[in-house]
Amino acid sequence: MTETQALAQFAAGFPTAEIPADVLHLSERCFLDYLGISIGAWDETAVRIACEVADDLGGSPQASLLGGGQASLIHAATVNGIASHVLDFDDTHQPTILHGTGPVMSAVLAAAEWSGASGLELLAAHALGFEVAARVALAVNPEHYDQGFHVTGTAGTFGAAAGAGRVLKLTPEQMAHALSTAAAQAAGLREMFGSMSKSLHAGKAAANGLYSALLARRGWVSAAEGLEGRRGYWAVLSSRADPERATTDLGRAWELRRNGLKPYACGVVSHPIIDAMRRFRETAAVPPEQIAEVRAEVNPYVLELMGKREPSVGLEGKFSIYHCAAIAYLDGTARMRQFTDEAVHRPDVVALRAKVQVQPDPALRTSATRVQLMGSDGRVWREEIAAASGTPGNPMSDADVVEKFLDLVAGRLGSGVARRVADVALRATGLQNVRELTGMLASMASASAAR
Amino acid sequence: MTETQALAQFAAGFPTAEIPADVLHLSERCFLDYLGISIGAWDETAVRIACEVADDLGGSPQASLLGGGQASLIHAATVNGIASHVLDFDDTHQPTILHGTGPVMSAVLAAAEWSGASGLELLAAHALGFEVAARVALAVNPEHYDQGFHVTGTAGTFGAAAGAGRVLKLTPEQMAHALSTAAAQAAGLREMFGSMSKSLHAGKAAANGLYSALLARRGWVSAAEGLEGRRGYWAVLSSRADPERATTDLGRAWELRRNGLKPYACGVVSHPIIDAMRRFRETAAVPPEQIAEVRAEVNPYVLELMGKREPSVGLEGKFSIYHCAAIAYLDGTARMRQFTDEAVHRPDVVALRAKVQVQPDPALRTSATRVQLMGSDGRVWREEIAAASGTPGNPMSDADVVEKFLDLVAGRLGSGVARRVADVALRATGLQNVRELTGMLASMASASAAR
Repeated sequence: MTETQALAQFAAGFPTAEIPADVLHLSERCFLDYLGISIGAWDETAVRIACEVADDLGGSPQASLLGGGQASLIHAATVNGIASHVLDFDDTHQPTILHGTGPVMSAVLAAAEWSGASGLELLAAHALGFEVAARVALAVNPEHYDQGFHVTGTAGTFGAAAGAGRVLKLTPEQMAHALSTAAAQAAGLREMFGSMSKSLHAGKAAANGLYSALLARRGWVSAAEGLEGRRGYWAVLSSRADPERATTDLGRAWELRRNGLKPYACGVVSHPIIDAMRRFRETAAVPPEQIAEVRAEVNPYVLELMGKREPSVGLEGKFSIYHCAAIAYLDGTARMRQFTDEAVHRPDVVALRAKVQVQPDPALRTSATRVQLMGSDGRVWREEIAAASGTPGNPMSDADVVEKFLDLVAGRLGSGVARRVADVALRATGLQNVRELTGMLASMASASAAR
Repeated sequence: MTETQALAQFAAGFPTAEIPADVLHLSERCFLDYLGISIGAWDETAVRIACEVADDLGGSPQASLLGGGQASLIHAATVNGIASHVLDFDDTHQPTILHGTGPVMSAVLAAAEWSGASGLELLAAHALGFEVAARVALAVNPEHYDQGFHVTGTAGTFGAAAGAGRVLKLTPEQMAHALSTAAAQAAGLREMFGSMSKSLHAGKAAANGLYSALLARRGWVSAAEGLEGRRGYWAVLSSRADPERATTDLGRAWELRRNGLKPYACGVVSHPIIDAMRRFRETAAVPPEQIAEVRAEVNPYVLELMGKREPSVGLEGKFSIYHCAAIAYLDGTARMRQFTDEAVHRPDVVALRAKVQVQPDPALRTSATRVQLMGSDGRVWREEIAAASGTPGNPMSDADVVEKFLDLVAGRLGSGVARRVADVALRATGLQNVRELTGMLASMASASAAR
């Protein structure tokens, strides 16, 4: 059996009842987290522009825009997918840096709402779609990403096709065509980091994957070997592939277990230093002007991704380990308010940022760091982070996930309704019809608009 | 100036009045050819499925589907783009094997109809968009294609963005963002050849390019260096790039002059052998059963693309040099009827196909061939084709282009109206408003539906 066939068989045929309970709960956590970061991003310029273009184009009101209103399946998947990724606050598959839930859930949720699927069907489709995206990512990791492809855009397209195809009840054969059609559309460049087009990758992955499933449902015939063929995805989008990783232990090992939710609104590899700097607030507890230097060691890759020395806008702050370190010490957190255009120009931030020195150490994992804080009086404090908070080895608690959700949406929706949505989403396996939840969001959005 | 900036400046700012008259006429020929092959493809399964999915999704009736009806800009671009490529009958940019008009014109025509642009604006946008697509293709040629990317899907996205952006009157700065956003979406794999997803590449290139222009028009900000950045298109989608080819002599040399229209409905590299076999009908003129062997020499690349020994469906016949050679001798042409599922199983075709032997010769260009036909009585005939018909060195006449159009659409539309459309399209520089032409197509389509 080829990888295309095996993944198609899995996505279309794996029994929902055999998905382990802990995996389904990880899906519930992803779902809640996804709703929070997407709704919380609704005022971002990228989301506003995508909504305007969707309005220009029109479409059947088939699925909810998470910030209010309805659109066609494709536009809902695009806009919600952009919203899910634009804050750089979404989940991260540790081994591949895939942000899987944005593309997969944006496609799955639209399809589930359209077809009136249950919460269990939604979560199963997310779990299976996420698995497909992560497996496709693993098979070409790390070369694919190192070459410059944004794996969230590329592998995300497969996951979205698999998840949406699951909801649409594709046969295994149709599913194989959907996955191959996803291969025909898989795109995304790391050059886009720091611009709106980074989040477009998640939106288009969702929309193109969903579109692949819609085509396949109507009888679309794609290449038989979209993944493994001589000119297929493995060969063309990576200098090296290990296709066995796409299928080994499929249905036994679950990649959602290696997926982390983000406590901080910035690049995941900056999270260890943020943890360390937050600890220094307790251990050193010196006023920032009495800090002489902060000296950190990180995996070289972290500097490659987060090396922006002087961010000039908030978005760049998310890719500056210097900014992350400084503001985490000053504010004790690193949420949306720490990555505004104003925040990167705050004099206290600029001053402390200048004192941060970062050295590469290939022996450290990207989820770890060693940091020294030197006081101007000569004292030295040390922190070592082995697994940053939010990583699978140090996960956010359910309560943390709810708190993050409330922080993101309460201002927009009011804390009472926000809390009710959180309750429903975190137990979405019990939801009879996904429309019960999307209906709540719609009424909340219109209440919000009326305020 | 970076390549992104130079191409954006060119697409947004090059004066229409300075586009040479011969280039505009090449655009008119492309336009007519595009209409014929797209309308002629309307009964293809891939087009039908894409229309059904567009119906499912709905949208504002902004632009014409070439086979009748209206759809949103994005769906029109997708469906028309698929139709333009599904017959493998569309134009070919000789140096890169880019099929440029399908993606570019599908985006440009939708945008032009929506905005009520003139024929001259349409053709200028096509000429400039084609130029951008071809320049992007040239800069990574041949490695990009050799690696397995389908350049029509990838470079086509840039051309569609440039052409649509021209119609939408983007500023140079907006155009640069549109081109960079196209880079974020550029996709397409040669593995899809022989399946419906090959034509999807043209459709999605059109739609994604147009979408990029629509986003940019609303203020979308993409990466500054989508093409030339360290993780940009040049670096990531090709093992080697020669970026100067993207800009050298821009506005002085025109790539449309190196673009050929196809006289035959199959892979362009099979056209030399078809020319040769058609000549043998005149020179040898022996009944097929008296042919002992046909021995051809071609560039090795031709066999790689067209090596299908035993096609089992019509689409595979288009990628079989053996089928092409046999049926060209038997039928004296190679149009749509020569590439049906029935045609590849015809006993006379199967018998003659078995007698065709093809040897690689790296010294031959892909547009050339040497062929020997050996009679069972020992006689031998030879033909040498230096530049296949339809190539820039041996172009179709305007009358040939009209005849091809009429052959493709007359059955569907009636020869009277078809001839009128041909007249208008081939002189589209004189069209006050593109809607005059799309209106004719709409009324023809409804008349056709009523029959």
